[in-house]
Amino acid sequence: MNSSVHPAQVRNVKIDSPFWNRVVNLVRDSVLPYEWAALNDQVEGAEPSHCLANLRIAAGEAQGEYQGMVFQDSDLAKWLEAAAYSLSVHPDPELERIVDETIDLLGRAQQPDGYLNSYFTVKEPGKRWTNLQECHELYCAGHLMEAAVAYYQATGKRKLLDIMTRMARHIDSVMGPEPDKLHGIPGHEEIELALVKMYEATGERFMLDLASYFIDERGKQPSFFKQEYEKRKGDTYFGLNTRPESYAQNHLPVREQTALEGHSVRALYLATGMAEVAREKEDESLLAACRRLFDNLLQRRMYVTGGVGSTENGEAFTFDYDLPNDTAYAETCASIALCFFARSMLRLDLDGRYADAMERALYNTCLAGMSLDGKNFFYVNPLEVLPEASHKDPNKRHVLPVRPKWFGCACCPPNLARLIASLGSYAYSWAKGEAYVHLYLGGEARLGDGVALTVNTEYPRTGRIEITPSAGKYALNLRVPGFSQGNFELRLNGKSTAAPLNKGYLRLDRAWQAGDRVELLLDMTPRRVYANPSVRADAGKVCLMRGPLVYCLEQVDNGANLSALYLPTDSPVTETFRADKLQGITELKAMGKRAEQNGDEALYRYSAPRKTAVELTFIPYYAWANRGENEMCVWIKEG
Amino acid sequence: MNSSVHPAQVRNVKIDSPFWNRVVNLVRDSVLPYEWAALNDQVEGAEPSHCLANLRIAAGEAQGEYQGMVFQDSDLAKWLEAAAYSLSVHPDPELERIVDETIDLLGRAQQPDGYLNSYFTVKEPGKRWTNLQECHELYCAGHLMEAAVAYYQATGKRKLLDIMTRMARHIDSVMGPEPDKLHGIPGHEEIELALVKMYEATGERFMLDLASYFIDERGKQPSFFKQEYEKRKGDTYFGLNTRPESYAQNHLPVREQTALEGHSVRALYLATGMAEVAREKEDESLLAACRRLFDNLLQRRMYVTGGVGSTENGEAFTFDYDLPNDTAYAETCASIALCFFARSMLRLDLDGRYADAMERALYNTCLAGMSLDGKNFFYVNPLEVLPEASHKDPNKRHVLPVRPKWFGCACCPPNLARLIASLGSYAYSWAKGEAYVHLYLGGEARLGDGVALTVNTEYPRTGRIEITPSAGKYALNLRVPGFSQGNFELRLNGKSTAAPLNKGYLRLDRAWQAGDRVELLLDMTPRRVYANPSVRADAGKVCLMRGPLVYCLEQVDNGANLSALYLPTDSPVTETFRADKLQGITELKAMGKRAEQNGDEALYRYSAPRKTAVELTFIPYYAWANRGENEMCVWIKEG
Repeated sequence: MNSSVHPAQVRNVKIDSPFWNRVVNLVRDSVLPYEWAALNDQVEGAEPSHCLANLRIAAGEAQGEYQGMVFQDSDLAKWLEAAAYSLSVHPDPELERIVDETIDLLGRAQQPDGYLNSYFTVKEPGKRWTNLQECHELYCAGHLMEAAVAYYQATGKRKLLDIMTRMARHIDSVMGPEPDKLHGIPGHEEIELALVKMYEATGERFMLDLASYFIDERGKQPSFFKQEYEKRKGDTYFGLNTRPESYAQNHLPVREQTALEGHSVRALYLATGMAEVAREKEDESLLAACRRLFDNLLQRRMYVTGGVGSTENGEAFTFDYDLPNDTAYAETCASIALCFFARSMLRLDLDGRYADAMERALYNTCLAGMSLDGKNFFYVNPLEVLPEASHKDPNKRHVLPVRPKWFGCACCPPNLARLIASLGSYAYSWAKGEAYVHLYLGGEARLGDGVALTVNTEYPRTGRIEITPSAGKYALNLRVPGFSQGNFELRLNGKSTAAPLNKGYLRLDRAWQAGDRVELLLDMTPRRVYANPSVRADAGKVCLMRGPLVYCLEQVDNGANLSALYLPTDSPVTETFRADKLQGITELKAMGKRAEQNGDEALYRYSAPRKTAVELTFIPYYAWANRGENEMCVWIKEG
Repeated sequence: MNSSVHPAQVRNVKIDSPFWNRVVNLVRDSVLPYEWAALNDQVEGAEPSHCLANLRIAAGEAQGEYQGMVFQDSDLAKWLEAAAYSLSVHPDPELERIVDETIDLLGRAQQPDGYLNSYFTVKEPGKRWTNLQECHELYCAGHLMEAAVAYYQATGKRKLLDIMTRMARHIDSVMGPEPDKLHGIPGHEEIELALVKMYEATGERFMLDLASYFIDERGKQPSFFKQEYEKRKGDTYFGLNTRPESYAQNHLPVREQTALEGHSVRALYLATGMAEVAREKEDESLLAACRRLFDNLLQRRMYVTGGVGSTENGEAFTFDYDLPNDTAYAETCASIALCFFARSMLRLDLDGRYADAMERALYNTCLAGMSLDGKNFFYVNPLEVLPEASHKDPNKRHVLPVRPKWFGCACCPPNLARLIASLGSYAYSWAKGEAYVHLYLGGEARLGDGVALTVNTEYPRTGRIEITPSAGKYALNLRVPGFSQGNFELRLNGKSTAAPLNKGYLRLDRAWQAGDRVELLLDMTPRRVYANPSVRADAGKVCLMRGPLVYCLEQVDNGANLSALYLPTDSPVTETFRADKLQGITELKAMGKRAEQNGDEALYRYSAPRKTAVELTFIPYYAWANRGENEMCVWIKEG
């Protein structure tokens, strides 16, 4: 275990490439202002958030009832965190003023004992810490802690960090292993990873210990939430008392868990916290548990799009190889959480499998969570959609064929904003004498010890990545994505060169000279991808990927009834960059077949449907559902 | 429209063939006694029925609370009807004594005004006719009417017929088109078809008019149930007030409906009632509606097994071509109801499509509803089962991989018993100078005008059917099932002969001599069946049928993960009769392929799974789930 790897600081990374400029600018110029308006209930046609209104009531500066979900504070927290990242690299005095004012408001809403939560301050002041299962006090606190660290790192301003330090102390005074404290755990994990960030920012050891406590306590008393429910005499907020213990990963001590179970976002936030604590505490058994969970996820529970969570019921994992395409949940937040977990694992093991999973989730499910105009968002990311089924089959009601504006439970949009706004910290990391590049976003990165990298690329439009390292003696570790292993070229100052490839990373250890230029040429040939035959939903099917991008078929390009289409094994796939389509995509085409109705209307017949030749058009999955309601599918029958 | 076709009377048909003797004897010797024990709460390990207990309380002969479903009386009614059919052909003084005693008990439970319903008599005496949507008073009455007619036809005893005539008069005094009556309709259709049977048995015209009223009233006031709910101030029994109007087919006047919608059993009981009234009243527009509904069902909404109802949510139809295999509902009762509808349509149009659908439902879904030992019953009849999914995926919780003993809501077992016990009336019908054979069950049938047929066959084990008609001048109409059209042979007294084939029926119009012998040789070659390409769930797949029997793969014969199996287009299918297996089946085998895991545990890879040759074993669908919990599928990938 290498506990001295640091992700790049967001403020030290400038992202610059045609693919990512669009997304990063969209988040900064459209999503953040849009979300701020949403948090202030100013988006027409969207469900009101009540978020700021609740906080003003909590601060005693407005009258009214608390409205919205019990965890509404977290939407603001995620927005604040995203805004902080944005300010890190793109100064904006007006935005900074808004953030400062909001932090001041949070300070005024904080109670004298350090407690901060608008729901329990306004609506149920006597009931703090009585419903950890459902009421998200620790979850909201965790998100505000992440925002506090981000804003401190962005601006050096400590106010929110101090507010959340007081809240952390308050929590520490209420909960923990000591006999006189409440031996509780959060129903929705988040504070574990946030406390480690707070610890890294403040050096306050109690924060790490509290994170560690929450992790070790989980699963020790599987009936904790039930006891809590009985103490409340059956009072419930969401009816979560009927959920199995695995819903909140409380079925077993975390070190004994071998698969991510239950609510997918909770499970992945927990896993991220576990990895963070394992690193800080150099806890090998906790790390081993993290590795087991990640392996199971990669080998048995992840969609090809990096989506996770197979069922809407409990927004949850189900069982190994159960990856239905048309009833998938695959929440945007869960794939964001998968990126968190992967980033944390990459600090522990330099293993390209983690980066591959992160890239898969990022370029596909995370990006699909947002419309190309940044104004509409998916919560659920299916791999197959028939709009009529979404409208008429109650089991598919959650599978929306078009992105709505804003959700009453709006976890995904601000979560996506904070991911995109902090992408630099996922792309690079460093340790003494080592620089790591995990994602090829283009731009510049300043890492530790004066190491700086300039990356020039149009990836994933092309596979050419040019890196100019700053002078000095250090190893440059470049990830070769799984799709290109076995077929890539490395050049140093224009000449092909070799370097050791270990677990997906090339290592170039040199005394770098000013002007040195490294080129990595990845193989972006469109490829057929097959699922393990144990995945029933994908048996007999194939999908196309080009680089990290999963492709899909849409009705608007291919006509209705996508289930009648076939891609023959030997049909060549051609690619064309289409600047005019879907804000610039590489479109794939192949000759395929369509099964046709044979004459009459018989439902069953003794002859196979006739197949006619058709041209199939594939677009990147992230760009689907931007041209009106229509069918979509990722997997197509082969044959 | 030919309104003078009569189904054979049950008592005039003796069924005798190796295939059906097993089933018919099972129903008589095991199912009827087992169900009687269940109705009396004497089956260990099964949910108690409370059925007889409730009735004794209603008769004032026992103390206690009403227990069980609101429609518990109907379970007894269906059992009585089945017992009556059994007594028609198999005298059993002990059974007749039990039935007579039960009829006496029903007489004592009947109220002075003719009202008969144990729930409203015992539990909510003041609330008769206030919750037609949910409380099944008319449904229970309908089933008791069917039992009354069956027992009268079996024994000539009028007591139950008189009881139910009084109940019919009472209903007629409460409901109907007159301004001073309640303009109501049953929430669950059944009484419509039952009233026509009562009318046929008694000649009481008001019964036909009342049936006609219930049919014409449906959909006229789509908000009737809502108004009723409001009058009850929101009192609800099942929460059906939240269901759309189509749930109970009340969304449109029945003549304007073009597809069966909502709860599948309700929809098909209604359709049967419509066909019966259309025939009795020679109502062409009602008949046209029946034809539209049947066409839509056949062309877009029926599983290959004759199962109907695609979703568990509302036990309902969904939309055209939506026939998911692994979340199918396909209730046993719905396929039984499909047989009712088909039998009624065959009285109106001699069209083999109706008989084909009836045979499909009967030999597959209906028979699959019962275990081979007659002691366990399926309510839901999926076409694909993975036991782990049934246990862990909430959307598949209704898909049981093994048949349970008895249900709290036990509609299916007694419904199946009455279908099997009255099968003769589905197999034959007659009109002046015409004899019709729809199903080849073997045995003897006495039809009208002294016409009698002796049928000698092992169908569906073989395709050879030998018929000895009684002497006389009449036309013998023999159905050629859809699967054999274009390849069959007809022989008269040992010599090939020709006869006109019209809509699936051969017509031999002759002066029959004693000793004449007709042979029909059907083509029982196993055949590949394909679904219309609009059926997404079956795209790229094939299933096997042999004669009327749909086949399936079970894990016990083919190993785990049936979704990895393929049946090549050109692989020959061989058949073997296995007397030792599953109580005698014709087993099918073919060489197929199995997609194999390629080496490591990767979930996604760039090479197609390797396929190895395997022998595939197919068994008839009706015989599945008799060898412990295991995977099953009907459709297999082709290729």
